[in-house]
Amino acid sequence: MRDVAVVGATMLKFGRYPDKDVVTLASEAAIGAIKDAGCSIKDVEIVVSGNLYQSNAMIGQRVMKEIGATGVPVINVANACATGSTAFREAWMAVASGAYDVAMAVGSEQMGKMGLLGADGASREYSTEGVMGTGLMPGVFGQAGVEHMRKYGTTQEQFAKVAVKNHKHSVNNPYAQYQIETPLEDVLNARPIAWPNTLYMCCPTGDGAAAAVLMSAEKAKQFTQNPVWVAASVLTSDPYTPRNPTMFDINTLTRNASTEAYQKAGIGPEDLDMVELHDCFATAELLHYENLQLCGEGEAGRMIDEGATYVGGKIPVNASGGLLSKGHPLGATGVANIVEIVWHLRGEAGARQVEGAKTGLAHVIGLGSACTIHVLKK
Amino acid sequence: MRDVAVVGATMLKFGRYPDKDVVTLASEAAIGAIKDAGCSIKDVEIVVSGNLYQSNAMIGQRVMKEIGATGVPVINVANACATGSTAFREAWMAVASGAYDVAMAVGSEQMGKMGLLGADGASREYSTEGVMGTGLMPGVFGQAGVEHMRKYGTTQEQFAKVAVKNHKHSVNNPYAQYQIETPLEDVLNARPIAWPNTLYMCCPTGDGAAAAVLMSAEKAKQFTQNPVWVAASVLTSDPYTPRNPTMFDINTLTRNASTEAYQKAGIGPEDLDMVELHDCFATAELLHYENLQLCGEGEAGRMIDEGATYVGGKIPVNASGGLLSKGHPLGATGVANIVEIVWHLRGEAGARQVEGAKTGLAHVIGLGSACTIHVLKK
Repeated sequence: MRDVAVVGATMLKFGRYPDKDVVTLASEAAIGAIKDAGCSIKDVEIVVSGNLYQSNAMIGQRVMKEIGATGVPVINVANACATGSTAFREAWMAVASGAYDVAMAVGSEQMGKMGLLGADGASREYSTEGVMGTGLMPGVFGQAGVEHMRKYGTTQEQFAKVAVKNHKHSVNNPYAQYQIETPLEDVLNARPIAWPNTLYMCCPTGDGAAAAVLMSAEKAKQFTQNPVWVAASVLTSDPYTPRNPTMFDINTLTRNASTEAYQKAGIGPEDLDMVELHDCFATAELLHYENLQLCGEGEAGRMIDEGATYVGGKIPVNASGGLLSKGHPLGATGVANIVEIVWHLRGEAGARQVEGAKTGLAHVIGLGSACTIHVLKK
Repeated sequence: MRDVAVVGATMLKFGRYPDKDVVTLASEAAIGAIKDAGCSIKDVEIVVSGNLYQSNAMIGQRVMKEIGATGVPVINVANACATGSTAFREAWMAVASGAYDVAMAVGSEQMGKMGLLGADGASREYSTEGVMGTGLMPGVFGQAGVEHMRKYGTTQEQFAKVAVKNHKHSVNNPYAQYQIETPLEDVLNARPIAWPNTLYMCCPTGDGAAAAVLMSAEKAKQFTQNPVWVAASVLTSDPYTPRNPTMFDINTLTRNASTEAYQKAGIGPEDLDMVELHDCFATAELLHYENLQLCGEGEAGRMIDEGATYVGGKIPVNASGGLLSKGHPLGATGVANIVEIVWHLRGEAGARQVEGAKTGLAHVIGLGSACTIHVLKK
C-alpha cells in the first residue's frame, strides 16, 4: 500500500440550489478541486462519485461529461450518509494500490426537503419501527440520547450545548448552510423533534457538493509543497445480532472504526488536533466524543460543559459548524468533512482556523450500516 | 499490485422470482460463492455489492445481515449495465492493493419487466432521443447494426445468426433464463423491435444474482488447487465529443478497453480460448467481435457465417447463451459472465464446456458510460 496525499480539496456552500441540477453542483466542486490541486483534468486517472438519491443515474460520468470527459474509469458508489466518504475511500484505494497516481472523489446530493425523516430506501424495510417513528432518524438519535441520560445522568442542556457550540462555529464558516448563533435558551425552547433533540439540535437537509484530488507521494511532489496525507482510511459495518437487528448500533459502529483507525494511523485520540464528526443530531455528537475515545465512558457531558470541543479548546470538534449548521447533503457530507480538515491542516480555514493543526479526524456514519473514519496529517 | 485469484464463483439461474426479494437472491448467490470457495463468512474481509435499481438501498449490508454480518467494510456500487463488473473490479482492487486478502463481489437485480426500454435514470436526460425512440437501448443498438450494414454490407441474416448461436448454446446452460433453440427463420420472422433486431435478437429482462470470492495468491493456496487468476481488470468511460454527445460510442468504448486489457494481461485476442461478451442485442455481439479485436474491421459477418464463435469453433463466444438467452438482470450480469468463465477454466461447465479452456475474456458495457473487461487465466 502506497502513501496517498490529498492535493486538491474544495466544496460548495451547502444550501438550497433549486435552479441548478446536481450534476452542475458536482461539476463545480470537481473543477474547484482540480484547480486547487493545480493539475489538469487530463491528470485525473480515475473518478469515484458518491451520490445517494441518484446513485443509479451515472452522476460520475455526467460530471466528467460536463467538465471534459477523458475516457477514464468512473465508479458510482452509495453508502447511505457515508456515501461521500466511501467514494473518497475508493479513490484512496485506487492510488494506494499502485494502479493509479491521481484519483478524484466527488460527493454530491440534491435533497430538497426530503431525506432525514426516513425517506431513504434502507429504512423502508423496518416497517414496525417506521410506523412507531422509532426507525426514523430523529427517533434513533433521540433514543440514543435518552439511553445516555439514563446511564450517565447526561442532561438535555448538555446535549443542547452541542448545538450552541456548532452554530457558534458556523458563524465563521462561509460554506455553512446556516450561520446563525443560537443561545442555549433558544435551543431548549425550539420546537421539540424527538426528545431530547429540539429543532436546532437536528441537521437541515440541503443541496451541495465537495471534491478531492488524491495523489501518490511522487505525483504530489509535482503539484504541491503542502500535501495532506491520509494516515488511515477505515470503513466498517455493524455485526447483526438479535439485540442489533437493524445493524445500526451507532456506538459500537463508531467505536470499532475508531479503534481500527487509530491503530492503522499510529495516531491516537490524544494526538488529534481537530475532529469533524457526524453530528446529524446534537445527541450524536456527545455520544461520539466517547465512541471516538476523545474522553472516557460517560464523560461526554462534562466535556461539553468544560468547552473542550470549542475552537481554542483542548480538541476542537466540528469547527465547520458540523452537520447541524453546515448542512447534510448526504453524498457530499463525507467528502466535505475531509475537505474541511485539509483546509485547516494547510492553514487555510480563515476565521475558524484551528491554529497549528497538524492532524485531524473525519467521521461519518450511515444507516444500515456504514462507518468511515479518515485520519489526516500534515 | 498483487496477483488476485477467483476462488469462489456462483450464480442463480436467471429468470423471474416474483416471490423472492432481491436481498434473498443476492444472499443465496453470496452463500453459494463462499461455499464454492470452501471458506467461511468470517474469512471474507470486504464486500462490494452491485445493484442498479436499488443502488441506494444498502443491498450489500442487507445481504450481510441475511448471511451473517461480521462488521466488515461494505460498499455499494452502480455503473449501469456494468454495475456487477464494477463491483467485481472494486473487490479485485481491494485485494490487489494489499489491503485485504479475501473480498467478495455480489451482483444482483430484480427488474420485473422494466429496464431495457429506457426506464433507467441515466437515459432520462436525453429527452429528444427519448421522444424519438433513438435514445432507448433497442434504438441505440439497432442503429449501430444499421451503420455496420452500411459500412460493410453486413446483412440482417448475419445478425440473426448470433441469436441462433446463443439460443443454441443456452440449451446446455441450466442457469439460462431461456433454453430454447430458435432456427434462423424463426428469428427473422419474430416481431420486429428495432431494425435489424427482432424479438429473439433482444435480451430479456429478469431477476438474478451472482457472486465471486477473490483472494490473494497466498490465501488462495489455502483454499484451492484450482485458482483462476485475474490477468487484467479494466474499466473505461467514453470521452465526450460533439459527435459523441451521449458518451456512448459502443465501438470506441469497447475497443479502447480491450486494447488496454490485452496490454495489461499480456494476453492477446489470439490467445483467448473463450469470450463472454455483452450481447444485449444481436447486433452488439457482431460489432464486438471487431471491437474486441477477435477479427479485423468489417469481418464480423464472415466470422458468424463460418461458425467460428460456436462452442467447438475457433473462439467460442457466449457459450452460456449470452444475455440473449441467459438474461440480463443488470447488477448481476457483470459478475455472472465472470462466473461463467471461471467455471469453464476449472472444467466445470458441463455440457457447454469449452474443452481445455485456459483463458477467457468477460466484457460488459453500460450506458452513459462504462465498459469493463476482465481477462481471466488458469
